[in-house]
Amino acid sequence: MNIVDSCAYPVMNMNSLILEKIGSLNYQKTPVPDVNYGEILLKVTHCAVCRTDAKMWKMGQRDLVVPRILGHEICGYEMDGHKRFVIWPGKACGACVQCRQGTENLCEKMEITGFHKNGGFAEYVTVPKSSLIPIPDELPGDIAVLAEPLACTINALERINVTAGSNVLIYGAGPAGLLMALAVKEKNANPFIIEINPDKLKISKKFQNEIGIKTAQEFNLMKFEFVINAASSVDTFLNGLNRLKNGGGFCLFSGFTDSKSIPAALINEIHYKQLKVAGAYGCTRKQIKEAVEILTKHKNIVVFLIEEHISLEQVSSVFPKILSSAVLKFVVEL
Amino acid sequence: MNIVDSCAYPVMNMNSLILEKIGSLNYQKTPVPDVNYGEILLKVTHCAVCRTDAKMWKMGQRDLVVPRILGHEICGYEMDGHKRFVIWPGKACGACVQCRQGTENLCEKMEITGFHKNGGFAEYVTVPKSSLIPIPDELPGDIAVLAEPLACTINALERINVTAGSNVLIYGAGPAGLLMALAVKEKNANPFIIEINPDKLKISKKFQNEIGIKTAQEFNLMKFEFVINAASSVDTFLNGLNRLKNGGGFCLFSGFTDSKSIPAALINEIHYKQLKVAGAYGCTRKQIKEAVEILTKHKNIVVFLIEEHISLEQVSSVFPKILSSAVLKFVVEL
Repeated sequence: MNIVDSCAYPVMNMNSLILEKIGSLNYQKTPVPDVNYGEILLKVTHCAVCRTDAKMWKMGQRDLVVPRILGHEICGYEMDGHKRFVIWPGKACGACVQCRQGTENLCEKMEITGFHKNGGFAEYVTVPKSSLIPIPDELPGDIAVLAEPLACTINALERINVTAGSNVLIYGAGPAGLLMALAVKEKNANPFIIEINPDKLKISKKFQNEIGIKTAQEFNLMKFEFVINAASSVDTFLNGLNRLKNGGGFCLFSGFTDSKSIPAALINEIHYKQLKVAGAYGCTRKQIKEAVEILTKHKNIVVFLIEEHISLEQVSSVFPKILSSAVLKFVVEL
Repeated sequence: MNIVDSCAYPVMNMNSLILEKIGSLNYQKTPVPDVNYGEILLKVTHCAVCRTDAKMWKMGQRDLVVPRILGHEICGYEMDGHKRFVIWPGKACGACVQCRQGTENLCEKMEITGFHKNGGFAEYVTVPKSSLIPIPDELPGDIAVLAEPLACTINALERINVTAGSNVLIYGAGPAGLLMALAVKEKNANPFIIEINPDKLKISKKFQNEIGIKTAQEFNLMKFEFVINAASSVDTFLNGLNRLKNGGGFCLFSGFTDSKSIPAALINEIHYKQLKVAGAYGCTRKQIKEAVEILTKHKNIVVFLIEEHISLEQVSSVFPKILSSAVLKFVVEL
């Protein structure tokens, strides 16, 4: 069967999950998408559920255009040849200042898969050929889907130039914070995690032990070279800046979902202590490639981050859990 | 006369200006200071008045210990040999992490001349030998004193990695903002200044024209690679972050003196646009040396920044002017 040829006529249908508008998710048949110039049709095998997917369903997101098939942590294979890929969920112009200086995640004409264009919560997805990142045979698809979130954490560490031997404090022991700790470890630095929900600390104990993550009480008086928020409360910023040594760096990895205001006196500390606060949003292809290597090396540990393999129909029922409970990573199998 | 020998007995007196406590400044005779191991006694020829001096007099400062002879923008000569120097107003331990990584201005045992120890509003000052930066014969002392404030602006540009060809928006056309523009120009970047006080723009017209600084209305819709506050209102931060291109850098060069709070939504922009906010506080010896070179090259332009040469007795009368009026740089001649 050659899906690409058959796209034109008759139209083939596929199972998909569409966010019609904020709060309204439909599991339904939709046409297999047309393949445009420079694109490829990918058969999706796995798509992980990101907290941002749940957030988009609940309250929208800056870059979301509805109706939309969500899902941007995708693994699949091409119809000819069956080569397996994860995708960089971006389509960058390659010509703007941002692309030229290596920050293609800030491309001025960026279209994000699962945000501006349809994503991986479907049997098929079209992807720019240039966004395909090949994966080795020994990397299972349900682990490979973590390449995108892991790459985002690598981007965070690069934004504040995390150095070998440094101590890095991470707010939040959700999947993002835990992957961040893995990335920190890969930089030969030391990950510490603060998590206010004791249940979250419990469910990831196995992963923490394997990676060598220090948690909570052990470091109440410590100051850190680097602090990163992998949790969306403004408190992470209010408290985190005070945990930095002079000259230290804070990475705003997670956007805030609450709206507490921030006293000018705290921002003044950035001046007096020569702190650096850097935002991180998304990742680049280079970072996804690096993530694939790390996942391949540590697949037997990363597997502890998977909460459950689910079907497309189950996604809507896990969104509320992701937003409110102590859960690890849900991976949709197609 | 050998001042150093005569320090021990009998005690010689000198004219000095002492901040007894916040708001209380005394012009009085005090003993010429003892010279400790590793120090030198410098005969002060010039000491410029920094806005921070006026701020310390009015409201104190984090690093100020009173009673104190203020003044940290110092030029003078050694008693033997009459070699001329400006000083790096720091005494760093040389052994802590900060010193070892080249950020000696953040030294964990830092003592700042004119803050923790007595400064240049006096006929003599003792300075660590290691903090002396020689100046060339052709650089007049009243220009040389600007090496320290200029070095602080160089530190600011280095903190956000200002690149050649970039557009840099500076808030504030006081002496610090104008020196910042000079430093920007020396990086082959393009300085733009916003100043809310039209009088301030008027009095520095000559300097602006010589350097090639663009001001106000000309760039209302422009976005910038870099923004720096050389003004102490929180508004510079609230407005300035919005003037940045994606991936741009904001330098918190001036501490805030007002206490407006900052909405979390603005800090969220740091995340979404991958902005960088970096504090700058003080400078290093290397930056003072660079500043001396720039001043020597541009002494005929920098002279336009001098408002008036004054005596030690006049300092108390210029503090209120510095805090409230459109004035350039006052330089004390001793």
